[in-house]
Amino acid sequence: MTASSPWEWSAEEIKRVGYQVVDLVAEHLTQLPSEPVFQPFPDELRQQWLATPVPREGRPATEILEQFAREIEPYPFGNGHPRFAGWVNPPPVILSIFAESLAAAMNPSVAGGNHASVHLEQQVVNWLKEIAGFPLAAGGLLVSGGSLANLTGLAVARFAKAEPDVRQEGLQPSTAKLIVYVGEGGHSCLTKAVELLGIGRQNIRVIPDDAHFRLDLAALESAIQRDLEAGHRPMAVAASAGTVNMGAIDSFPEIADLCRRYDLWFHIDGAYGTPAILSDRYGPALASINLADSLALDPHKWLYVPVEAGLVLVKDAELMRAAFSLVPPYLAMDEAAQRVSGPRWFSEYGVQQTRGFRALKIWMALSYHGLKGYKAAIEKDITLAESLADQVRASSDFELLEPRSLSIVCFRYKPAGVGEGQLNALNQKLLLELQLSGRFFLSGTTIRGNFWLRACIVNPRMSQDDISPLLEILRDLGKRMTV
Amino acid sequence: MTASSPWEWSAEEIKRVGYQVVDLVAEHLTQLPSEPVFQPFPDELRQQWLATPVPREGRPATEILEQFAREIEPYPFGNGHPRFAGWVNPPPVILSIFAESLAAAMNPSVAGGNHASVHLEQQVVNWLKEIAGFPLAAGGLLVSGGSLANLTGLAVARFAKAEPDVRQEGLQPSTAKLIVYVGEGGHSCLTKAVELLGIGRQNIRVIPDDAHFRLDLAALESAIQRDLEAGHRPMAVAASAGTVNMGAIDSFPEIADLCRRYDLWFHIDGAYGTPAILSDRYGPALASINLADSLALDPHKWLYVPVEAGLVLVKDAELMRAAFSLVPPYLAMDEAAQRVSGPRWFSEYGVQQTRGFRALKIWMALSYHGLKGYKAAIEKDITLAESLADQVRASSDFELLEPRSLSIVCFRYKPAGVGEGQLNALNQKLLLELQLSGRFFLSGTTIRGNFWLRACIVNPRMSQDDISPLLEILRDLGKRMTV
Repeated sequence: MTASSPWEWSAEEIKRVGYQVVDLVAEHLTQLPSEPVFQPFPDELRQQWLATPVPREGRPATEILEQFAREIEPYPFGNGHPRFAGWVNPPPVILSIFAESLAAAMNPSVAGGNHASVHLEQQVVNWLKEIAGFPLAAGGLLVSGGSLANLTGLAVARFAKAEPDVRQEGLQPSTAKLIVYVGEGGHSCLTKAVELLGIGRQNIRVIPDDAHFRLDLAALESAIQRDLEAGHRPMAVAASAGTVNMGAIDSFPEIADLCRRYDLWFHIDGAYGTPAILSDRYGPALASINLADSLALDPHKWLYVPVEAGLVLVKDAELMRAAFSLVPPYLAMDEAAQRVSGPRWFSEYGVQQTRGFRALKIWMALSYHGLKGYKAAIEKDITLAESLADQVRASSDFELLEPRSLSIVCFRYKPAGVGEGQLNALNQKLLLELQLSGRFFLSGTTIRGNFWLRACIVNPRMSQDDISPLLEILRDLGKRMTV
Repeated sequence: MTASSPWEWSAEEIKRVGYQVVDLVAEHLTQLPSEPVFQPFPDELRQQWLATPVPREGRPATEILEQFAREIEPYPFGNGHPRFAGWVNPPPVILSIFAESLAAAMNPSVAGGNHASVHLEQQVVNWLKEIAGFPLAAGGLLVSGGSLANLTGLAVARFAKAEPDVRQEGLQPSTAKLIVYVGEGGHSCLTKAVELLGIGRQNIRVIPDDAHFRLDLAALESAIQRDLEAGHRPMAVAASAGTVNMGAIDSFPEIADLCRRYDLWFHIDGAYGTPAILSDRYGPALASINLADSLALDPHKWLYVPVEAGLVLVKDAELMRAAFSLVPPYLAMDEAAQRVSGPRWFSEYGVQQTRGFRALKIWMALSYHGLKGYKAAIEKDITLAESLADQVRASSDFELLEPRSLSIVCFRYKPAGVGEGQLNALNQKLLLELQLSGRFFLSGTTIRGNFWLRACIVNPRMSQDDISPLLEILRDLGKRMTV
């Protein structure tokens, strides 16, 4: 195929290449289940890629797509497969896959303006507020994912609690140290955010878990009191709605009460767990998520939207704006110009200036499945996790880590005759063998000194038939192993 | 169309919806030139959208696509149009539009691993290093855009220059204030980054421009000396390769020398201008961009890749890693596991954990056009800017702001009989009239107290035939206006 001009294709040419791409998408999605969940990328191909300099001459689109089909498509991350339960990375909503091309064809900058992508983002953010039970007046911004959502929420927290004005003067003049309280199960991106904000990792208090892997409330209050006595400034509690390892849901009403009493910002990392608010099982525990001052929620996790799609909500929209807004002269907006400039720019509420049209894929996903479709899919994930947990409980050669929560199951292989001292090495090796077998994909984690296999199920493609053979696969691999 | 299951479509169903999407893309791209560049989003539709709660029930894909075609597609940002020269937002490379669907179909997390998207990002980042003249051993990471690229570079700078260890202790214990030097023309995201890092805006020294709108070197050195005398810690110079307003290129060898002598980090915001290194005209001025310790370069600007696609390069890869790495237990990688875990994870080099497959659209764009195609397109943008500048120079009723640089032209309407005191209001109003006319799209900016119309040409769809009528359009609108 030769295009009429490399930069200006006719409708026919666009369709020819576009249909070829759609066929590749169809092939990839429908053939995945019969492929291994994962296979390592070939070393030779990697070397060949790294030895290839930037192309001097262009190549036809068809040739590039053929190379994609040959060298890229066969080596996915694994999360599109019915037997992937590695991390909180779902297979994508199919309509949202195509939304990405529509978004790229329009290619707006959603910094702001009076064009469709801006208003659609407002609608979508309102929809997500509605799901999380946040007021419509709250501030909200689509971001790349949990890392940026948590960073943004904590940046507003810092602005709200630091003295003097941290935007103007920075943190150096502040005499009292700002302290952030994070649960043991808090995501590492919370630590990264605290570091980036200049607060320092030493000023994170890691609060031990209670028996349910939740932030221990007594320990939290003691830590706050100790810091106050030491002359520090307790700044924020960063709680979790679905911890990374265990899916634990912290006790929001109690934490909110503590934050009120001690004047702390209440942030919740609900990047993974928030959508379970739609389920009958976890709805009640998550109903109080709206007590937070700020919340992270990733549509690219349990709303199954393709990456990247994160969201940060901040209850006080004006405070959010005050923490970030810096309207540069070439984007200045006055009243008369609002027919072009539109509502307040998104770039005033966060880190990014130019922003992509992330809203479209979320809008299409929510429109296509509706809350009803989401409720069913999320409840199915939870049911599969419960079913796996039941299997583990019923098996004398496996051990379940309890209490478990949401759609995460941590367990380990513990065959008769293997001593406690060898279990960590055994399970680490077993995990690797499983991943390399291509038969199923789990991740692993270390909790309280023990290594656990970790299933995280956010996968509408997975069925009971996929999960049922898992323990037998593990036994099969385990028996052939020597540690 | 009804899908066999909302989460599991057959190949036929995927193709039916996918082809419909491709047809929409083809229609959008080919019909844009005959539409207005921009038209305000209708107020009634906005109200209707905002009044629509999150859908309870799902809807068929076709119905959603029809709504897209009716309500979203007709109201673009404008940058896909041949007559858009508003901001540094290009029309997208067509093949890269479809790359977005392929990336979303595979939907990897490019945090790390031994799958295709990780290795393709390494290749693409190496290609971009090659273009910028950076060593292949440099650290590099695709990010959302210039805001995150500049933030990441300055975060490494802070880590390198702050004492004590800023990641551990934060900025509060440091006795000497960290100072960042930014040119008058520096992008506002540099200020935002300094604020977010906890350094504080008061500790930014805005260095005046020289006669060429570049960072004035004598003023820079004086400022550094004053800060040293005051006991501060000069941390970094953030120079520009293509300032926002004027496209000015700072004097890199001289700034690099100053940074060496005073032990400052040398960061360049080349988000916009870097790709002009491929042009004969600006290649020499940009050849020394590789003197920087860190560089921001946005493929979604002058490499015409759809948003979001930014890049940060840091010459010392180990320092970049040391500034960010925090490998959490559930992602721990040992030697034996590298067949699954792959090379060092990208998430160790920046802010994000889960990351999208941005590399694919950049890889396809560079593969399709090659450096040769890019050189031609970039030089054409520069030629169009020069041609507009020539037109302005030759017109007694327009004034050009000189010296101009790269593909930016700042000018204003200055008809006989209008006093200097009225020119700002006149040009502001004229800009708005132009934008609302749908006949051409410029932005505006205030420089040294005057308001200027600003053309920023990164637009392979634009031809001489598009730019030639611009002054006449402005005259036509101007004559009908009363200020």
